[in-house]
Amino acid sequence: MAAKNIAIIVGSLRKESYNRKMAHVLIGFASNSLAMEIVEIGDLMLYNEDLDAKPPSTWLNFRERIKRNDGVLFVTPEYNRSVPGVLKNALDVGSRPYGKSVWERKPAAVVSLSPGAIGGFGANHHLRQTLVSLNMITMAQPEAYIGGAATLFDHQGNLANEGTRILMQKFMHFFTLWMERIHWDVA
Amino acid sequence: MAAKNIAIIVGSLRKESYNRKMAHVLIGFASNSLAMEIVEIGDLMLYNEDLDAKPPSTWLNFRERIKRNDGVLFVTPEYNRSVPGVLKNALDVGSRPYGKSVWERKPAAVVSLSPGAIGGFGANHHLRQTLVSLNMITMAQPEAYIGGAATLFDHQGNLANEGTRILMQKFMHFFTLWMERIHWDVA
Amino acid sequence: MAAKNIAIIVGSLRKESYNRKMAHVLIGFASNSLAMEIVEIGDLMLYNEDLDAKPPSTWLNFRERIKRNDGVLFVTPEYNRSVPGVLKNALDVGSRPYGKSVWERKPAAVVSLSPGAIGGFGANHHLRQTLVSLNMITMAQPEAYIGGAATLFDHQGNLANEGTRILMQKFMHFFTLWMERIHWDVA
Amino acid sequence: MAAKNIAIIVGSLRKESYNRKMAHVLIGFASNSLAMEIVEIGDLMLYNEDLDAKPPSTWLNFRERIKRNDGVLFVTPEYNRSVPGVLKNALDVGSRPYGKSVWERKPAAVVSLSPGAIGGFGANHHLRQTLVSLNMITMAQPEAYIGGAATLFDHQGNLANEGTRILMQKFMHFFTLWMERIHWDVA
Repeated sequence: MAAKNIAIIVGSLRKESYNRKMAHVLIGFASNSLAMEIVEIGDLMLYNEDLDAKPPSTWLNFRERIKRNDGVLFVTPEYNRSVPGVLKNALDVGSRPYGKSVWERKPAAVVSLSPGAIGGFGANHHLRQTLVSLNMITMAQPEAYIGGAATLFDHQGNLANEGTRILMQKFMHFFTLWMERIHWDVA
Repeated sequence: MAAKNIAIIVGSLRKESYNRKMAHVLIGFASNSLAMEIVEIGDLMLYNEDLDAKPPSTWLNFRERIKRNDGVLFVTPEYNRSVPGVLKNALDVGSRPYGKSVWERKPAAVVSLSPGAIGGFGANHHLRQTLVSLNMITMAQPEAYIGGAATLFDHQGNLANEGTRILMQKFMHFFTLWMERIHWDVA
Repeated sequence: MAAKNIAIIVGSLRKESYNRKMAHVLIGFASNSLAMEIVEIGDLMLYNEDLDAKPPSTWLNFRERIKRNDGVLFVTPEYNRSVPGVLKNALDVGSRPYGKSVWERKPAAVVSLSPGAIGGFGANHHLRQTLVSLNMITMAQPEAYIGGAATLFDHQGNLANEGTRILMQKFMHFFTLWMERIHWDVA
Repeated sequence: MAAKNIAIIVGSLRKESYNRKMAHVLIGFASNSLAMEIVEIGDLMLYNEDLDAKPPSTWLNFRERIKRNDGVLFVTPEYNRSVPGVLKNALDVGSRPYGKSVWERKPAAVVSLSPGAIGGFGANHHLRQTLVSLNMITMAQPEAYIGGAATLFDHQGNLANEGTRILMQKFMHFFTLWMERIHWDVA
């Protein structure tokens, strides 16, 4: 079976973002059956339907990149108990123009990661509500609410926390199966 | 009593936005005790903590504008069953740097408005969850989930739909009382 | 292929419940590949972990009934912008004792139906959040937020509203495919 | 000023419930300006509108008890990432018959407490969505998502964890101010 291509979307633009570190860890955990790469969202202009008459090239490139992938893995912090604006904007850009959403029927999974104990629960489930409307087929379990982000990684960006490493390996095990087994190619 | 200053934040950037029309209608409904003006969010760069070392002037201006107001009225569409990225980004920009949120303890209210029947319920309540974390004191009732946005306004931008006009006048009646009576100036 | 057995759970106990009527309509729309029956929840005692030392027979019967089915279809009103207590209690009863949830890995779908315009959106998505934690694999689209419940049915309990009939037939078409194609039998 | 009467509603029926312990701790933390008592919900029949023609005496008593109080404090676990069915049922019972809700305009606050790290975030915010529809005026901050419930209390039921004790004293400080200062007696 050919490897499945997975777009990873990181919900933070910070250079030293914990979520970006986690994305790289997850790429390292991926089996040969997944080809994962980060798709950047920081250069996307704020969505405005008027611009879709002549869309910015960054929007077109982003939509094209997502379309080429077989699935999407979201790795995101929580901002103010919800999805960061920057991530929601990327979802909005990819969902339009009406009837041409690039998210349609793609399998997906969600990791939320934050410094506090709650592990981005609010972002995680607000994102899932949006993924329902986008007709993405989102893995339920294992849920991944990862707290204590500031102490998880060593200087090389590896997961120094063993419990989290085991959880994220399990998460990638199930996400691989999810990508292999869930097909929803109905017209 | 001096008039209370209210920042209206419109969740759509579209020039002919129904939500912008509704904002103008609500300004027209306001009693003398409220001075309402739209604060624009379309020129705010996507939030990135790294930029807060030397924040864009648009961020500084926006934060200053919100701070000067006594309360906030959100008028927003729903994008993909949640808050538009552009609105969430404005909330994120105003909430930082950590400990300097400009939203703190301000009374607020929410109107959601969309073309479909559901009237932006998903955006309305996701927004409310964020407002809890921002310590805003948000009016509960009347809830305002306004559907059928495309047929509500006449060519002058007035509310042609009588049921909606009555509801929105009632909404503004209670929001005025909310601004007059709710004080939460605790340190 | 043998027919899949589907438990329908109706979120209202009212004798003339619109949701019960809708459940019967959906049973009538089911193809031969689905065998659907309503599983009652009105006699379940309020969940109390202490009782699980010697569980009420109604709990045991309910758990057994759900376990025997291949999938679950929820048809529910909204009470106070969320899942009715009676439905949430059934979910809680079926989820325990810890590690013995009867919901585990079952495919599911959600219809929400209410007299107002919003069509039970709040109940629908609160329910979906719980289904994530129960590891149920819930169909995303078509979403079914059905408003105006009081005028949908004729005296025989048929769907008199054509738009709703078409939507619900489409819903059952996709739910049938969902039951046929989604397999998540991972240990 | 006369003491305000506060109904505490505990979302778990378990005899050794951590949330019941927390409720007693909070009663101990209350200043003289609050008179707090637990109102029981375990004997309320599952809400069924048909029964409201001749309501069970437990419903009538419960509604009467809530009505007599000036405010409500919810102390609840999370069941399956949402409000326990038993608590939602109590909210539903108190909200009916239509137009006679006993919750109307009462100030409220929410504590969620669970064994896991996430501290009942899902229950906390689902509950808040319902409180909006019930027109309760719910304190925003401090948020109280209390995790690690199994290790918080000593054998006498006191809070052995100092961080949690300080947080809950702060919570009661603000809730007292909330009850004193928030008046929403609009017709």
